[in-house]
Amino acid sequence: MAFQKLGVCYYPEHWDEALWREDARRMRGLGISIVRIGEFAWSRLEPADGRYDFDWLARAIDVLHGAGLEVVLGTPTATPPKWLADKMPDMLPIDAQGRPRKFGSRRHYCFSHEGYARECDRIVSALAETFGAHPGVVAWQTDNEYGCHDTVESYSPAALRAFRDWCAAKYGTIGALNAAWGNVFWSMELASFDEIELPNLTVTEANPAHRLDFQRFSSDQVVAFNRRQADIIRRFSPGRTILHNFMGSFTAFDHYRLGAELDAAAWDSYPLGFLERGRHDDAFKLRYMRVGDPDYQAFHHDLYRNCGRGRWWVMEQQPGPVNWAPWNPAAAKGAVRMWTYEAFAAGAEVVSYFRWRQAPFAQEQMHAGLLRPDSQPAPGFGEVEQVAREIERLRLSGGADRADVALVFDYESAWAWGIEPQGQDFSYDELVYAFYCAVRRAGLSVDVVPPMAEAVANRRLVLAPGLFAASEDFVAALKTADIVLLGPRTGSKTFDFQIPAQLPPGPLRALVDLKVTRVESLRPGASIRAHGLPGAFERWREWVEPGPNAGVEAVAADGEPALLRQGGRYYLAGWPDEALLDALTSRICGEAELPNLALGPDLRIRDCGPLRYLFNYASKPRDISQLIEGAELRLGGSELEACGVAIYERPT
Amino acid sequence: MAFQKLGVCYYPEHWDEALWREDARRMRGLGISIVRIGEFAWSRLEPADGRYDFDWLARAIDVLHGAGLEVVLGTPTATPPKWLADKMPDMLPIDAQGRPRKFGSRRHYCFSHEGYARECDRIVSALAETFGAHPGVVAWQTDNEYGCHDTVESYSPAALRAFRDWCAAKYGTIGALNAAWGNVFWSMELASFDEIELPNLTVTEANPAHRLDFQRFSSDQVVAFNRRQADIIRRFSPGRTILHNFMGSFTAFDHYRLGAELDAAAWDSYPLGFLERGRHDDAFKLRYMRVGDPDYQAFHHDLYRNCGRGRWWVMEQQPGPVNWAPWNPAAAKGAVRMWTYEAFAAGAEVVSYFRWRQAPFAQEQMHAGLLRPDSQPAPGFGEVEQVAREIERLRLSGGADRADVALVFDYESAWAWGIEPQGQDFSYDELVYAFYCAVRRAGLSVDVVPPMAEAVANRRLVLAPGLFAASEDFVAALKTADIVLLGPRTGSKTFDFQIPAQLPPGPLRALVDLKVTRVESLRPGASIRAHGLPGAFERWREWVEPGPNAGVEAVAADGEPALLRQGGRYYLAGWPDEALLDALTSRICGEAELPNLALGPDLRIRDCGPLRYLFNYASKPRDISQLIEGAELRLGGSELEACGVAIYERPT
Amino acid sequence: MAFQKLGVCYYPEHWDEALWREDARRMRGLGISIVRIGEFAWSRLEPADGRYDFDWLARAIDVLHGAGLEVVLGTPTATPPKWLADKMPDMLPIDAQGRPRKFGSRRHYCFSHEGYARECDRIVSALAETFGAHPGVVAWQTDNEYGCHDTVESYSPAALRAFRDWCAAKYGTIGALNAAWGNVFWSMELASFDEIELPNLTVTEANPAHRLDFQRFSSDQVVAFNRRQADIIRRFSPGRTILHNFMGSFTAFDHYRLGAELDAAAWDSYPLGFLERGRHDDAFKLRYMRVGDPDYQAFHHDLYRNCGRGRWWVMEQQPGPVNWAPWNPAAAKGAVRMWTYEAFAAGAEVVSYFRWRQAPFAQEQMHAGLLRPDSQPAPGFGEVEQVAREIERLRLSGGADRADVALVFDYESAWAWGIEPQGQDFSYDELVYAFYCAVRRAGLSVDVVPPMAEAVANRRLVLAPGLFAASEDFVAALKTADIVLLGPRTGSKTFDFQIPAQLPPGPLRALVDLKVTRVESLRPGASIRAHGLPGAFERWREWVEPGPNAGVEAVAADGEPALLRQGGRYYLAGWPDEALLDALTSRICGEAELPNLALGPDLRIRDCGPLRYLFNYASKPRDISQLIEGAELRLGGSELEACGVAIYERPT
Repeated sequence: MAFQKLGVCYYPEHWDEALWREDARRMRGLGISIVRIGEFAWSRLEPADGRYDFDWLARAIDVLHGAGLEVVLGTPTATPPKWLADKMPDMLPIDAQGRPRKFGSRRHYCFSHEGYARECDRIVSALAETFGAHPGVVAWQTDNEYGCHDTVESYSPAALRAFRDWCAAKYGTIGALNAAWGNVFWSMELASFDEIELPNLTVTEANPAHRLDFQRFSSDQVVAFNRRQADIIRRFSPGRTILHNFMGSFTAFDHYRLGAELDAAAWDSYPLGFLERGRHDDAFKLRYMRVGDPDYQAFHHDLYRNCGRGRWWVMEQQPGPVNWAPWNPAAAKGAVRMWTYEAFAAGAEVVSYFRWRQAPFAQEQMHAGLLRPDSQPAPGFGEVEQVAREIERLRLSGGADRADVALVFDYESAWAWGIEPQGQDFSYDELVYAFYCAVRRAGLSVDVVPPMAEAVANRRLVLAPGLFAASEDFVAALKTADIVLLGPRTGSKTFDFQIPAQLPPGPLRALVDLKVTRVESLRPGASIRAHGLPGAFERWREWVEPGPNAGVEAVAADGEPALLRQGGRYYLAGWPDEALLDALTSRICGEAELPNLALGPDLRIRDCGPLRYLFNYASKPRDISQLIEGAELRLGGSELEACGVAIYERPT
Repeated sequence: MAFQKLGVCYYPEHWDEALWREDARRMRGLGISIVRIGEFAWSRLEPADGRYDFDWLARAIDVLHGAGLEVVLGTPTATPPKWLADKMPDMLPIDAQGRPRKFGSRRHYCFSHEGYARECDRIVSALAETFGAHPGVVAWQTDNEYGCHDTVESYSPAALRAFRDWCAAKYGTIGALNAAWGNVFWSMELASFDEIELPNLTVTEANPAHRLDFQRFSSDQVVAFNRRQADIIRRFSPGRTILHNFMGSFTAFDHYRLGAELDAAAWDSYPLGFLERGRHDDAFKLRYMRVGDPDYQAFHHDLYRNCGRGRWWVMEQQPGPVNWAPWNPAAAKGAVRMWTYEAFAAGAEVVSYFRWRQAPFAQEQMHAGLLRPDSQPAPGFGEVEQVAREIERLRLSGGADRADVALVFDYESAWAWGIEPQGQDFSYDELVYAFYCAVRRAGLSVDVVPPMAEAVANRRLVLAPGLFAASEDFVAALKTADIVLLGPRTGSKTFDFQIPAQLPPGPLRALVDLKVTRVESLRPGASIRAHGLPGAFERWREWVEPGPNAGVEAVAADGEPALLRQGGRYYLAGWPDEALLDALTSRICGEAELPNLALGPDLRIRDCGPLRYLFNYASKPRDISQLIEGAELRLGGSELEACGVAIYERPT
Repeated sequence: MAFQKLGVCYYPEHWDEALWREDARRMRGLGISIVRIGEFAWSRLEPADGRYDFDWLARAIDVLHGAGLEVVLGTPTATPPKWLADKMPDMLPIDAQGRPRKFGSRRHYCFSHEGYARECDRIVSALAETFGAHPGVVAWQTDNEYGCHDTVESYSPAALRAFRDWCAAKYGTIGALNAAWGNVFWSMELASFDEIELPNLTVTEANPAHRLDFQRFSSDQVVAFNRRQADIIRRFSPGRTILHNFMGSFTAFDHYRLGAELDAAAWDSYPLGFLERGRHDDAFKLRYMRVGDPDYQAFHHDLYRNCGRGRWWVMEQQPGPVNWAPWNPAAAKGAVRMWTYEAFAAGAEVVSYFRWRQAPFAQEQMHAGLLRPDSQPAPGFGEVEQVAREIERLRLSGGADRADVALVFDYESAWAWGIEPQGQDFSYDELVYAFYCAVRRAGLSVDVVPPMAEAVANRRLVLAPGLFAASEDFVAALKTADIVLLGPRTGSKTFDFQIPAQLPPGPLRALVDLKVTRVESLRPGASIRAHGLPGAFERWREWVEPGPNAGVEAVAADGEPALLRQGGRYYLAGWPDEALLDALTSRICGEAELPNLALGPDLRIRDCGPLRYLFNYASKPRDISQLIEGAELRLGGSELEACGVAIYERPT
């Protein structure tokens, strides 16, 4: 079994070649094993159309390899050079306002532009042919952060043509499309696929079914774009791990589908940047400004592990202040180390820091690296050094087990409720995340999974709040789980974005016998208190008629059913606030015979194989002796300092 | 005399024809008399250019008529089909940013596009010719919600050409236009009408006179567009009522002028949606989230009754949660019934609910109907049933009298102060509405009227705050009213959007002898307290020099005149807060020998002929025994429940 | 020596010629000496292409001159007429969204359009040739408020061509540009100057070096545009003062560089408008709503005096409510007079009011004048009359001395930190202004100066917070000052917008021996308290390593160096809050042997030659007897009323 490793992102093209050897030596000395290079270097790899210059890259790989480092080679397709953009100006993406998005930063390409895709085939083939068999190259990264800067959707002529073809392939006849979309409404009926438009710049909102299909199409275009590269790399560089570095809080394409065509998933984890840019209130942001949201990293680890079908990396780990959040504070002492262990606890094969040395120029000059621009160690350097020493001793091998708890997170549902929130603050991401935080506060380890049969079958507990539509085989698989919690809004649409003929929850009625007869969204300050339970519904509530096979497990203060039950299957008829969610989690965990450790706001736990990891996101030490019950710690002490990490082997 | 009736909006094209007969039977059973159909069905009526298919509509009308229902037929011009938009792509409106507003929702047409107008002539003629004499067709609705989604203004080449012609017709010579607009300022002088531009995308604000004329032109284009349809319908379907369904809080065209060419006005009343989307603060929105603003519906009833010169309908009455407000809560029990009676109290001929059955597809799938998507009764259904039973007994005939009180509400003033607020929160709508609420809190029934002589002549009390300009004959008519209250800003411009040569209030100085010598706008938190009266001016204050014929009735704390008077004419020199407004209303009502019932925030009254209606917008019951003074109630009890309605005959 | 004078802005073209003579007589009677005319009159001077009509202007000048008034003649290039915009439609500026900015207001021209520039040469030549030798013409104003309404930057084809040339001239080779910009990052490398794009509409942020050069270019285009006019006027109208009227809070071009080509600077001072539109909180805006920010006017006076190398005017002084702020309150009684003396105290040669008579038409009809639209005196009139009487007695001659204190304010730094704030509230303007207010609260008179050697050499105290880059000769000149305060962020970039190789403060390390090793930005609510001093860092903090020659003068609560010192040079390692800034100012003033009068929020002082002026911005009187220490007052009393002004001669 391979051990978990450390990596770093490096840009040899940014530095005098004279520095490379010393950089490589210092990386190795620090305990780095893996180096990602090349992903933005197209203008150096092909300075003019068809004129390749791969020599420098060959030398860089040799230097790194020679120093005992393994290389991840990135394809440079996120940054097409100027000569290419000038050669085919219509490769630029068009924004929703109809404006071309110009050259001058990155990601200036439309996923539907076949001409550009062919250029990518060409450069990726050349690179893979040249370096695919190099013994130092152990992995490939396709492109970089697909979709960053809102680039999944393009409203270009190329996208329009491709969308029409996509619709034709999906629906066969325009009549089928008209029926599926409900185009009789507002005379939106179309006579042929050539009449389809992109859903931007309409007078008022476009048809939600139209918008959802455009989102599906746009997602498919990303998947297809990636597939071309993966296929080429597999041909020329067999046996290497193919990855892509996904982002946090990003749902514009279906990461499961793209991940299914990779060997492993990866993501770029910036705890402080994401906290600052995220949706929490100011008090929360102040409290965690130097450590990050205690659950955010873990949520994504648990998601991307499942995107990679068990294999995943952190490709870019924040090492200090970044440059892109509204405010960019320094990390607390110990935070970089703690984040690294959070990833290892969730089974990461590699945690790779972004970047080796802070670049003193261009857009990211204020983004910290492990080294300062003057090559001296930045604060993150020392923490990485400590982790490297520790893991050499600990010999961690990762391999997170299938968790007892599965939380369904579905990209199509994020699109659906983004298109039709019905209440301004009905955010699918927030809803799922609220459930995630609740089970994590309970101390449970979770898999964040797609709404697919194999992902939920035979789990101890499955949570599927807000899942917009459910397939028959998914419903069947849910029946094999011990405990299932559905609602609110679960199953409230068909895949065609219509209300099910027999009302929500559609096919999920086979699990809990009920009908959602009406719903409402609630403005901030309005809530529906629970009866006999702490907490309330906020944002969203439903009126439910139980069928003969379901019982009312709890009611709201107004007497309406709030929690319905049929055997081990539950349906929750509203958006629970934190108090209600904790009460509910406690009840359901009991039912599923899962412990509820009630960890509170700052302490967190993750199990990985036989090991249990503990993390302290508080700014004060915490006594964990009761939690570990006398077990011998492999790392840390029973007084867990701020940003502290403890590891012990659970008695089996 | 005809009795007041209930109606419903129905879309036979959305449902299997097999359902129509049962739907019609259930409507009739519920107590519905009127059904509106057809207004979005162009793609079904003419699936391809020139290929009509009216048979299904004929069958639908027959089914409804056969069940004893009367039909309102809508012209489908709000939703031109795709083939039409493709045939003349320049029919699309152009937004203020210069972008075409694409097909894919509704209202994708420019009011100035002659080609589109001719297509409308054609389809309306065909429909009117086919169905105009059908015994089941009792009324026509032109188009649907003119101007919805900001569609009055279009910045298209067609609009530019038409605007140039409009200016030429209005001014005769370009010199006259230059003088009227003051184009010498900033060298904006034009040499010919062909040099006129639309007032969008200028470097900084365009000339306010230019903007006001563009607004007048845009309004006129809507009126002209409607006239073509009305003329055609009158020719082919004589004797039927021609209506249009206006909206709430919408001022982009002159509703009086359009209403003058209809047989009756109608509006679409969504109390909860409008409250959520409106300008009230969060506390107010929470308080009334399930019943709506207690004065909002009544204001529009009183406005549209006058738009329809006494004849008016509610064409779309909210029956439950809608889909388009920021949040969409359920209505309180009884609210749908209360809203219905509010409309009857204000003289509505018909209250028609939107819609019969919730559509499970497309943009409005979350908009409640009287039926759920599964054809079961939604909550509104039962309330309509109750109203239907009650009105069968009550035999209400409407026919609101001319009210003692007239409140002037002028579309041009709304445009003028929108163009030149001078203080960020100087909103004409809000100013007039504040006066409306004050007189309604006093228990008075009001006509909301245009600034026209016949509308104000011989009234007991006329209120005209913020009227930007006044014509000579309007001034003359005001002299025939007992009590008149002007100001702030009344008469402060000429119709050319200039400051009157002798300063404000221009020709209204003939009513109150004074000169407004200067003004200021006040940021939130700044106010000018009144002396000897409760309350203060906020937002706006004026310095006034009284002439020899006017007296100072009240002063501000700084000694400046605050309320001026000449006989029964008053001038108020600032924007009154609620306390000052109530004190002022009380004083003026006394002067006009009108009672002030001081109803407080939740109870409301409307008189209709001999009947007095009471409404309770509170969430608790209210004892109204003192108010009704022992009169015998025809509906309700002296303890008026939440959402309760009481009716009694006032002693004459 | 010339005495300080009053002026007024006048638009003869707006009024019947019959009014001119009486207007001139009244101006003279009021005490006005100078009249600015003509700057928006192109459509009257050249009603059609090539058809000049200068006669009316000649008559107007004669009338004014005949009444004993001196004329400032404006070039009309801010308002090209419609025929000219139609003749060359590509002269319109293009906004950052790619849209032409249309005719219909003012400033609708692109600074890079050579065709338009030639038209300006033509009209300016014709005017200068005609009126340049007129004895009544004593000065010229070029154009009007360059850059107003965000017009410095244009994204037009003309700008693109000119920017490419500018880059070629600056860098010589494209390789030099690639290196300077760091274009290797994200493959942004260019193969020729023809590949350069403008930095708008990029997918994400463009390269900061690219953006900074575009800002420099745009600024240079304004300077070059002005130079053409100044050259023409100097040729035809020798000996006249050439001015331009700058604005407040406007940094989009380098005012020092443009000012260097004028004879005197001028600015347009609107204390109430700027306060309302500015960044202060609501409480501050309410407190000063009728008098303006006590330091804002003075800051700009002290800036523009240095822009004009000692010679400067207020060209437009607010006389009452304006029309363009969010709210437009009336001025306090006495405020217009106080503002006038503030300008004289700072050495203004002329204070000229905008405008003589309020225009009753077009965009500025709500902008007060000295006269009402009906030609009666507005409130400002009386205050001007009082000032005129007083200065006739006082015989003030201005001539502000070089101040002991120089505060560096640099336009390039404003661009740099606008491009890369790194923390959302890191505003260079606010940072410099905070230091200005602190020294003004201490009672000191200040020069606001560019980062140039001669501006800082041999000063008693130089403050240079946030200066992004420093030249060698500027560093050398700083060594000749007694006391220098640098930081935060001073010297943190090279002029190429890169981090200095040896880290910040780059070449300024020659003054204070230290290295800034890392930085962070702090969200509101986060702060780093000082140890042993009141106050804290907020928004921004730095970690500093002192070298052997520097000492730590103060530390933060976490022990990190907060204030570093080497002899008389200080470096401050964060953004100080007001308390820390006052403590620091007190310490540094002591060091520099400058008094700290601790004036508090409302009282202000300015020294001008031998005279000391005192101003009371409070709404209550203030006893100043202690401050003046028995000196004899030439104006005012020792109880200084609200808006009061006192003047006395300091004992030498």
